[in-house]
Amino acid sequence: MSKLKLYYDLMSQPSRALYMFVKLNRIPFEDKAVALRSGEHKQEAFTKINPVQLVPVIDDGGFVLTESVAIIQYLCNRYDLPEHWYPRKDIKAQAKVNEYLNWQHANTRMNCAMVFRHLVIIPRETKKPVDWEQVNMMKKRVAFVVNHLDKTFLKEKPYLCGSEVSVADLLCICELMQLNAVHEEQLYESNPKIKAWAERVKKRLNPEFDEAHQIVYRLRDLYKSTIAPSFAKL
Amino acid sequence: MSKLKLYYDLMSQPSRALYMFVKLNRIPFEDKAVALRSGEHKQEAFTKINPVQLVPVIDDGGFVLTESVAIIQYLCNRYDLPEHWYPRKDIKAQAKVNEYLNWQHANTRMNCAMVFRHLVIIPRETKKPVDWEQVNMMKKRVAFVVNHLDKTFLKEKPYLCGSEVSVADLLCICELMQLNAVHEEQLYESNPKIKAWAERVKKRLNPEFDEAHQIVYRLRDLYKSTIAPSFAKL
Repeated sequence: MSKLKLYYDLMSQPSRALYMFVKLNRIPFEDKAVALRSGEHKQEAFTKINPVQLVPVIDDGGFVLTESVAIIQYLCNRYDLPEHWYPRKDIKAQAKVNEYLNWQHANTRMNCAMVFRHLVIIPRETKKPVDWEQVNMMKKRVAFVVNHLDKTFLKEKPYLCGSEVSVADLLCICELMQLNAVHEEQLYESNPKIKAWAERVKKRLNPEFDEAHQIVYRLRDLYKSTIAPSFAKL
Repeated sequence: MSKLKLYYDLMSQPSRALYMFVKLNRIPFEDKAVALRSGEHKQEAFTKINPVQLVPVIDDGGFVLTESVAIIQYLCNRYDLPEHWYPRKDIKAQAKVNEYLNWQHANTRMNCAMVFRHLVIIPRETKKPVDWEQVNMMKKRVAFVVNHLDKTFLKEKPYLCGSEVSVADLLCICELMQLNAVHEEQLYESNPKIKAWAERVKKRLNPEFDEAHQIVYRLRDLYKSTIAPSFAKL
């Protein structure tokens, strides 16, 4: 069996989730880091692998698959990973994980990414100052997301979909961590239940969590030192 | 076994997909239409069922599930529906359907919905004229989506994920039909392969397709008669 090829960049949230996931589950893989910052994902070699030019991607003996959620679900089937990550036998338990995985795209993922994007990426690309109206609108949407994470998903359980960690927690924490990069973690840590859940998830996923998030911790330091003067506008 | 309760409104694309899906598969259900236009989804009775206040939702003997994709996957497991809709035995075939289902949220679904939203919903809510800059930006994104539907997903196959129709085709066509409602179907029908695929899918899903889309056909007539003067701006 040829080794699984994993194309990723730890700059991307779903890449971090997948990288952690294969390490946590001891799945042997061939490391195919793709440097987004130097535009490797837009070059011909990578575009042949994924025409949508996004990471992560896997190549499992010629079977190429994109989309982090689809990849993680496939790996659970392929390596018969523990049911708690992604249930296959209990169809109701699976449905509840799928419910979060589908909800997150336009909610946790989009809104946390947009806070980061408006604070870091757009000003860098356009050379224009931060559009605080947009940032504040996205922050309001994150507040909506955090409320639903608490009241609709987590409720009184230790993890989003049950008593053990699942891929829903893994993908969720990676998106929320985009807020840590720009010192906005208070947006979710202000909710004591979500704060406690985040600490529980990080602990459960360590040391792989910290390894995958080194880049976020570096970005966080860099953001503080370079963007600090802009804070006066807050 | 108590009958499956289906909460939906045919005004919503995923509701149309799910409504068609249960009818196509002859799944008996209790009809729980929720009138979005009169705000029934925001009333207490429905908010208790789905705190996110969105349709569709199912209640299967007390098991409440939101998110159309999760619901459809659950029904495939629950009623052991034909594999072509959503493969369970062939994990690679399942992974390719999952790949599309995850990609569509921020692509087919979001961009087609935004064209409709900027042409119909936002002007109605704000009483302001159509923002053509936004509409044109969304149209460009639809062009990107259609190109990937053709080159990345459909390729030379009759359906998006194989030789038979799957839930990927079902969900995709429902989102594209939002464009028909505002006479913008040329955005996807201009691609001959996608046009032929759309005709194939509609034929395969009929007569349930036309039944679920009556409201779209009525909106289309209404849009032409009431918004026609705005076309001068195009």
